[in-house]
Amino acid sequence: MVQFSDIAADLEAQAIELPSWAFGNSGTRFKVFGTPGTPRTPEEKIADAAQVNKHTGLSPKVAIHIPWDKVDDFGALGRYANDLGVSLGTVNSNTFQDDDYKFGSLTHIDPVIRQKAIDHHYECIDIMSEIGSKDLKVWLADGTNYPGQGDLRGRQDRLATSLAAIYDRIGEGQRLVLEYKFFEPAFYHTDVPDWGTSYTQVAALGDRAMVCLDTGHHAPGTNIEFIVMQLLRLGKLGSFDFNSRFYADDDLIVGAADPFQLFRILVEVVRGGGYGPSSPVAFMLDQCHNVEDKIPGQIRSVLNVQEMTARALLVDRPALEAAQAAGDVLGANGILMDAFYTDVRPSLAAWRESRGLPADPMAAYAASGYQATIAAARAGGTQAGWGA
Amino acid sequence: MVQFSDIAADLEAQAIELPSWAFGNSGTRFKVFGTPGTPRTPEEKIADAAQVNKHTGLSPKVAIHIPWDKVDDFGALGRYANDLGVSLGTVNSNTFQDDDYKFGSLTHIDPVIRQKAIDHHYECIDIMSEIGSKDLKVWLADGTNYPGQGDLRGRQDRLATSLAAIYDRIGEGQRLVLEYKFFEPAFYHTDVPDWGTSYTQVAALGDRAMVCLDTGHHAPGTNIEFIVMQLLRLGKLGSFDFNSRFYADDDLIVGAADPFQLFRILVEVVRGGGYGPSSPVAFMLDQCHNVEDKIPGQIRSVLNVQEMTARALLVDRPALEAAQAAGDVLGANGILMDAFYTDVRPSLAAWRESRGLPADPMAAYAASGYQATIAAARAGGTQAGWGA
Amino acid sequence: MVQFSDIAADLEAQAIELPSWAFGNSGTRFKVFGTPGTPRTPEEKIADAAQVNKHTGLSPKVAIHIPWDKVDDFGALGRYANDLGVSLGTVNSNTFQDDDYKFGSLTHIDPVIRQKAIDHHYECIDIMSEIGSKDLKVWLADGTNYPGQGDLRGRQDRLATSLAAIYDRIGEGQRLVLEYKFFEPAFYHTDVPDWGTSYTQVAALGDRAMVCLDTGHHAPGTNIEFIVMQLLRLGKLGSFDFNSRFYADDDLIVGAADPFQLFRILVEVVRGGGYGPSSPVAFMLDQCHNVEDKIPGQIRSVLNVQEMTARALLVDRPALEAAQAAGDVLGANGILMDAFYTDVRPSLAAWRESRGLPADPMAAYAASGYQATIAAARAGGTQAGWGA
Amino acid sequence: MVQFSDIAADLEAQAIELPSWAFGNSGTRFKVFGTPGTPRTPEEKIADAAQVNKHTGLSPKVAIHIPWDKVDDFGALGRYANDLGVSLGTVNSNTFQDDDYKFGSLTHIDPVIRQKAIDHHYECIDIMSEIGSKDLKVWLADGTNYPGQGDLRGRQDRLATSLAAIYDRIGEGQRLVLEYKFFEPAFYHTDVPDWGTSYTQVAALGDRAMVCLDTGHHAPGTNIEFIVMQLLRLGKLGSFDFNSRFYADDDLIVGAADPFQLFRILVEVVRGGGYGPSSPVAFMLDQCHNVEDKIPGQIRSVLNVQEMTARALLVDRPALEAAQAAGDVLGANGILMDAFYTDVRPSLAAWRESRGLPADPMAAYAASGYQATIAAARAGGTQAGWGA
Repeated sequence: MVQFSDIAADLEAQAIELPSWAFGNSGTRFKVFGTPGTPRTPEEKIADAAQVNKHTGLSPKVAIHIPWDKVDDFGALGRYANDLGVSLGTVNSNTFQDDDYKFGSLTHIDPVIRQKAIDHHYECIDIMSEIGSKDLKVWLADGTNYPGQGDLRGRQDRLATSLAAIYDRIGEGQRLVLEYKFFEPAFYHTDVPDWGTSYTQVAALGDRAMVCLDTGHHAPGTNIEFIVMQLLRLGKLGSFDFNSRFYADDDLIVGAADPFQLFRILVEVVRGGGYGPSSPVAFMLDQCHNVEDKIPGQIRSVLNVQEMTARALLVDRPALEAAQAAGDVLGANGILMDAFYTDVRPSLAAWRESRGLPADPMAAYAASGYQATIAAARAGGTQAGWGA
Repeated sequence: MVQFSDIAADLEAQAIELPSWAFGNSGTRFKVFGTPGTPRTPEEKIADAAQVNKHTGLSPKVAIHIPWDKVDDFGALGRYANDLGVSLGTVNSNTFQDDDYKFGSLTHIDPVIRQKAIDHHYECIDIMSEIGSKDLKVWLADGTNYPGQGDLRGRQDRLATSLAAIYDRIGEGQRLVLEYKFFEPAFYHTDVPDWGTSYTQVAALGDRAMVCLDTGHHAPGTNIEFIVMQLLRLGKLGSFDFNSRFYADDDLIVGAADPFQLFRILVEVVRGGGYGPSSPVAFMLDQCHNVEDKIPGQIRSVLNVQEMTARALLVDRPALEAAQAAGDVLGANGILMDAFYTDVRPSLAAWRESRGLPADPMAAYAASGYQATIAAARAGGTQAGWGA
Repeated sequence: MVQFSDIAADLEAQAIELPSWAFGNSGTRFKVFGTPGTPRTPEEKIADAAQVNKHTGLSPKVAIHIPWDKVDDFGALGRYANDLGVSLGTVNSNTFQDDDYKFGSLTHIDPVIRQKAIDHHYECIDIMSEIGSKDLKVWLADGTNYPGQGDLRGRQDRLATSLAAIYDRIGEGQRLVLEYKFFEPAFYHTDVPDWGTSYTQVAALGDRAMVCLDTGHHAPGTNIEFIVMQLLRLGKLGSFDFNSRFYADDDLIVGAADPFQLFRILVEVVRGGGYGPSSPVAFMLDQCHNVEDKIPGQIRSVLNVQEMTARALLVDRPALEAAQAAGDVLGANGILMDAFYTDVRPSLAAWRESRGLPADPMAAYAASGYQATIAAARAGGTQAGWGA
Repeated sequence: MVQFSDIAADLEAQAIELPSWAFGNSGTRFKVFGTPGTPRTPEEKIADAAQVNKHTGLSPKVAIHIPWDKVDDFGALGRYANDLGVSLGTVNSNTFQDDDYKFGSLTHIDPVIRQKAIDHHYECIDIMSEIGSKDLKVWLADGTNYPGQGDLRGRQDRLATSLAAIYDRIGEGQRLVLEYKFFEPAFYHTDVPDWGTSYTQVAALGDRAMVCLDTGHHAPGTNIEFIVMQLLRLGKLGSFDFNSRFYADDDLIVGAADPFQLFRILVEVVRGGGYGPSSPVAFMLDQCHNVEDKIPGQIRSVLNVQEMTARALLVDRPALEAAQAAGDVLGANGILMDAFYTDVRPSLAAWRESRGLPADPMAAYAASGYQATIAAARAGGTQAGWGA
């Protein structure tokens, strides 16, 4: 039996990057609901993100999105973040909100528009260098809505060429991380629909190109932990975008829809060397808090990842391997379930307190009065959202 | 063998109502692309809809959406439509774009908000009476994003009470049509997710309450034509919202994603008495033309329904029944496929010409110059979309 | 906060019926693997089922399947069961393994075959009366593989007529329970694919006809707990067939694939009055242990239901209702998750011991030597399986 | 506009390999229905397959399955086939029906069982050499039913090692073709679930290892033609297993469930150089005729592929490319749909007659009396099925 004390040291390594956009408003094609206190500037988003780290100690980095978080002085933005105890992380590009990209960006049939999309990534790389960011994350909305609308093959070839042009600018300590998504916003086909496509594209680029796995971007029935295993085996798992979903890409709080799936994913992460100080895998959230409060939504999310990581670390691997070798199906499954059903929350609360963190970060945030403060202070202006 | 001449008369009965909102801009949560010439007013939407009917003879009615199509004088709007050769049809309510409805409308736990939503439907019924509309279509965005967020049972009970209040106001020649949808915009649960829920709710109301079947609102693998059969059998199929989808509720052109499915649906419609002058079933489109031109998108859509209806009518029913009775699987399937693979387009072109309509409505519209005219004329103003 | 002591008394009410066929061999269309000690007779199946009850106290009844469990003297079989501390429960009919049923049974176009299927159900009802069984469970393999193969409407009408003939024979204290399944073994359509169809069919029969919900019989993305809520609301939830699945109808151990879904289902069961001494809902397993040991597989299954029922009972309902009323999404969800993440296993172990049951039924069974005994004793003969 | 005469010569290249097992009985886990005249020996299967080729000219090869088609003298079997106008094709291995493979074959944790599975493939390669077969097709049932049952990573590594051992024996003119399948018969995970896994495994082997794409082996919503495009682009599409499905792996007649999907697949095949004399892509059927007659089922299948190939060849590519370049969504889609809706059947009938084949192969077979002859002649013996 593995005890919590056996894994406590391993928990120190955990860091989950927050997406700046999670603090802005988001919604569906039907409606975006606003909430009092929603940030109006990148600085206010970072301030909110810092609250999550303050109460959990789990989220020292904030991912930014260009152009949503574009500022005149990124150096100043970085220092602002540092002053709040966090730093800027992954830079996310955006080629889906400009009218030019109606029919694609890096895959567009028109070389002028492709170059515009490539140039946008160059700008992102410049920002990375300025803020000391390691990862450029590329998620593309490219795709088509109707069969025949585009030439699948030509688009894929152009994607390879565009990515190669971007990769050429990626610096030594930097990485290009390519996300895949099997649907949305394009309906008929997306140009990077699955891990196989992302993998073959980044494998063609080089060692510093990796795959980003967003847990909400798969077809129903897909065994996601298998993909985690495979990408780790192939040395190409660059990062996670954590969230959860029931049917579409709901971007719900990670672990909310299927906690056991999150557990299985983290079990494979640990198994495959994807967790710990020497792992190249970056943990990020990519969520939207459409109807729930945003800051506690993020606190809940990083706690969910932490609790499930603890459960994954609690798996008694020698016993599991023995049961697997013996063909003891129920025994092996039982060892896994034992860890999943263990209530790690009291131990984690004590562990947090031992590190000067609140035992219950949700309660601590609620008691802090921060929410009321920003609701009062952030009157006027335009609340941040998905628009540029 | 059934010949086209055998079914020509039956085609006269076809009428497919157009949604006014199909002529406005639409998109995804990521981006709404605009197009030159997009209507800015209900009148311009109706003018565009009239173009579809002018070239096809298939769409004499235009469904409106309240408040998107709200005007001061609905009588005048109706006369405007009539002058263009069409009339106003189904009235669609909207309880999903007001901040009050963040946690529900007809199902809301707060009686004040429920009453507000009921009152909105009363307003819609008043408009129906004013414009001579027969159907009130109720589609609800009500639902929850997280387990526990709402009480499923309480919400269902409140839905029943709210619907009863609305139904009380429905006039003699009017109907309440309740649409179901298994996901979106709510992620965890929707309050009317399936035909069974819509059926049991409307069955409790009375004879003038019916089910609306939107072809894009089902889980993967659902046999939609079975539901068509069942609702016709139970006497509760009120209307169709036609569109097509690959994965989510894409609202693509009807027949675009799976033409054979559309065929099977129409075969059951014909089989169950859902087609023809005495049928209570209303045919409507509910589509979004995010990247394609809107007016030809609608023309293409009604032609798709017409062509597929022709194919469904061509099924040799006596031969089919004989094969079914004999357990001749391949024979029976072959009879169905024969009708599906018949190219009805030349016959339909001739039939159209015989009625004073263009043989090729798509080409006729393109040649008409209408698109260039509206693109030039509709400069300025705010293009219509899903916002109020 | 609800404590375990608050719910301990409620746990007394729990009883989960076991399927006799779970103790026989099962598999896929590719292969059925046998295991040493597999029963060869109905008596041996019942003896194995009694082991599950002996170690858990949770399964006082054994469902039988006709003709798989057909014996000359059902009275004797019932007494045999009673001697082992269990009794015979639900009678399951079978109209899917006779060559006559290739194209349907209760829906067959040939009245002779329909009558044969009806007569089979009469035989089942006679057996019910003989053994004191309350429920006749009807699951049909009826359906078609190809569009056109059958007339969906005609089959549905014949189904109604056949069910009415069967229902006529159902005695006062008996019930007809109709199961639905959205696919398999028929590929194109099944005649009872969804709860709506089962509901409308049994509603037409009368008060003693109910719906059976098998947790593995839904399309991907279906919110099963919503259906539980709805059927309880409509007064038509007759019984559960518990199991779990990843993609198809895997018939895995209940709770194995998505424990949180099982929790949500049981939360709705409790919420809607489906649990407890006065509830009409029968809890059954319907599982196949293809690669794992059968008896411990069943023990694990009833324990999973018990543990999850305990978690469902632990939900702090007043607090939940308050959070729901306040629109506190994270608070409400958190209250639910608190119960789910509570490790009830130590409390249940103590509770079992207080009732003279082993703290760890899995370990107790393993230590009992029963498995080795039957492996040795049951040499020769034909192992029971899905064949008659 | 492309005319049928423009593509007639291209149709000469078409050859679709038949699976010997399609002529034997098959079914579901619930029941296997037999039919009169079902072959009892490999020779009888080949005789039936020859009938398909006789009436269509489309199926010169018959794939065999070891051990189902194991004979003492494969040379004699090949000559027997040649005498009937066909030849033996792909050799399919089987590691899913031996008790030793309960927990895996090429991935098994026990090296003895892995070696047994490897040896079975060596035997298949020997048979290939004897009969002049080009392709060894490997489909594995390997996987697990419960989380924790196996070590995903260890299994994947062992798979790589086993495949390398097999690939070492593959001769110069031979290929190893690895099929993927996202579920069944394993429920929780399959060891080769997706094209990405199959691709990375065969890419590690060498040039003569390719991917087999079975059209029924994908998650719902998967864009299969995209995978076809990608594998052709990567030079790794070895072969197709054609069939169709509604939900699970139904193995229905190709084109029966979604003819438009089959069309789109063939459009990408043609677009990517996968069709024609110089293409490395092998076209095969992998179907089960559970309730329909087997020989006409296969005739219908090859005709479906031929008709859809004709439609795919009819796509006006220059016009399509022009529309795509212009961003003309409706125009481009319309060009594709024009080809799909073209009724090629009359032209194909004439084309067949011009080559000495029956205009209507289904009718010709029915008129031939072959079915009655085999029904009478093949009395007694054991009908062939999926059992060894």
